[in-house]
Amino acid sequence: MTNAAAAVPGLDDVNAAARRLEGHAIRTPLLWAPEIDAVAGGRVLIKAECLQRTGSFKFRGAFNAIAQLPDDARRRGVLAWSSGNHAQAVAAAAAHFGCRAVIVMPADAPAVKIANTRALGGEVVLYDRATQSREAIGMALAAERGLDLIKPYDDGRIIAGQGTAGLEAVEQAAQMGLEIGLAIAPASGGGLVAGTALAVRGANPTADIWAAEPAGFDDLRLSLEAGRPTAVPPPAGPAPNATLCDALMATMPGDIPFALHRRMLAGSVAVDDTMILGAMRTAFDRLKIVLEPGGGAALAAVLAGAVPTRDRVTLVVASGGNVDVATFRQALDAPPLT
Amino acid sequence: MTNAAAAVPGLDDVNAAARRLEGHAIRTPLLWAPEIDAVAGGRVLIKAECLQRTGSFKFRGAFNAIAQLPDDARRRGVLAWSSGNHAQAVAAAAAHFGCRAVIVMPADAPAVKIANTRALGGEVVLYDRATQSREAIGMALAAERGLDLIKPYDDGRIIAGQGTAGLEAVEQAAQMGLEIGLAIAPASGGGLVAGTALAVRGANPTADIWAAEPAGFDDLRLSLEAGRPTAVPPPAGPAPNATLCDALMATMPGDIPFALHRRMLAGSVAVDDTMILGAMRTAFDRLKIVLEPGGGAALAAVLAGAVPTRDRVTLVVASGGNVDVATFRQALDAPPLT
Repeated sequence: MTNAAAAVPGLDDVNAAARRLEGHAIRTPLLWAPEIDAVAGGRVLIKAECLQRTGSFKFRGAFNAIAQLPDDARRRGVLAWSSGNHAQAVAAAAAHFGCRAVIVMPADAPAVKIANTRALGGEVVLYDRATQSREAIGMALAAERGLDLIKPYDDGRIIAGQGTAGLEAVEQAAQMGLEIGLAIAPASGGGLVAGTALAVRGANPTADIWAAEPAGFDDLRLSLEAGRPTAVPPPAGPAPNATLCDALMATMPGDIPFALHRRMLAGSVAVDDTMILGAMRTAFDRLKIVLEPGGGAALAAVLAGAVPTRDRVTLVVASGGNVDVATFRQALDAPPLT
Repeated sequence: MTNAAAAVPGLDDVNAAARRLEGHAIRTPLLWAPEIDAVAGGRVLIKAECLQRTGSFKFRGAFNAIAQLPDDARRRGVLAWSSGNHAQAVAAAAAHFGCRAVIVMPADAPAVKIANTRALGGEVVLYDRATQSREAIGMALAAERGLDLIKPYDDGRIIAGQGTAGLEAVEQAAQMGLEIGLAIAPASGGGLVAGTALAVRGANPTADIWAAEPAGFDDLRLSLEAGRPTAVPPPAGPAPNATLCDALMATMPGDIPFALHRRMLAGSVAVDDTMILGAMRTAFDRLKIVLEPGGGAALAAVLAGAVPTRDRVTLVVASGGNVDVATFRQALDAPPLT
């Protein structure tokens, strides 16, 4: 692991990532709607990362990590494991650098995500979720073929890359004459919210930073209370915890993101599927963007009144839009929240 | 009518409109997806105007027109007739200037559009579509109350405002190192495609400019063939012509837009509802944006292979996203076009 991967990043690293991403990532718009402002009691600015290349913010971190690999490492290639957004992001970023990407995916991942990862140039290695460990398969493959491992969040380069969305939002808000007083982003392993915190606190050191997590996967909330990375407890009954947010199912924050969370986060809010679907419906009605469930978690927390948005300027990161038709139908059926 | 309203606008007018709109209109992103490029055989850049304030490009023209009113006219207020996007745009732009907006809408317009127009501060006057003329009611009200009429397309200020979307696209493409060789935009009365032509031809005088219209409402195609504004013929049977594109139902281009069309357009393509729904589905899958049927007309023409996109850089204006849930469900049911 390189130093940049293992180190806790700072604002300088986010700024450097922004220079690397210039002209490669889409500068996604900062949207707002009067109906959402009315519910929040203040101005709400939505950073539409569902419009990012490969449909989520993950492209930023993957590109920033691969851009920093030495030439010989790029010649050997990279490896990632993921069933979704990180897989597509690593495949697309690797293709940009003419670098081979091996992606370890569960055999029962949605066929469309496997097809998309392949279409982006990724070499997909399937494993059986019930009997095999993706980490074991991935580590063995990486060692055998000399591939560099691109982790989804526990990597300073990834966190710095994800922070560039927040950096753009700060600049876009300033162009509107606004300063962000509160920022909220969805959290799985916590890379996005850690990077967002660096960017937003860099501009306004007193800004409140919040995370949003699915109920049952609110390990960041537990970790902040405990003061150390803490896993969610196993479910009480025989059934596993369930959430529509397939992108937010990590059960413990990463060590490197948590070093930033502990220093900068005000808290983390758990949101349930009903709120998530309502937020997706509201984004359809008011913003004309397609959000996946995980992508709507932070907006759901704001519309539920779970964070103190009144009389403040709030940044909401709408982190991804890779949703299937059946799930989106559920969102269209949900009552709108504005 | 002021001079700027009655004159055929030029590139300078589009540039002046862009300065007026700075910081007020959203700088919508220029999106692309490898799957769409593959179908087109060239790079396709999609200007996502569904993300514009009030959900369509119409905010640009309305703002540009009202910004140019003298103070005394603004004190009296403005009037528009529209059942949809222009209504909301005029209401929002008028509210910005603290100016009263009277909007004449059919009593059977979708309740949500009437509610949205009112929520934006518009004073809605309803009329009976079967027995009353909106033009007659509007003209009488405007005369009685001294209101300035803001027409939807036959106005140089409106055309110049709509052209700012094209101007931004030219700049955004240049930042990606690309020059637009072909541009296509949906046409109803033709204000958007006329403004787009000014902006894109201003940067590349040899660019091909196309319009996309719903089948049965392809008056611009007929007009270009005839060399003068020509109405679509009445339907052969007793039923009226039908299209899902409620925003594109003008039956004849405006005189001022057509003066530009005649000079600059390569042609106009008619697209049917099946193609439109497929384009909306593709935008959901690949771009994560919500398009209304009219907003997907230009993308449908590109995906149908109706314009010569091979080995060129094509600009597609995705003009609006104000669609109800029932129609969007139809799009989710449609087979994707990529």
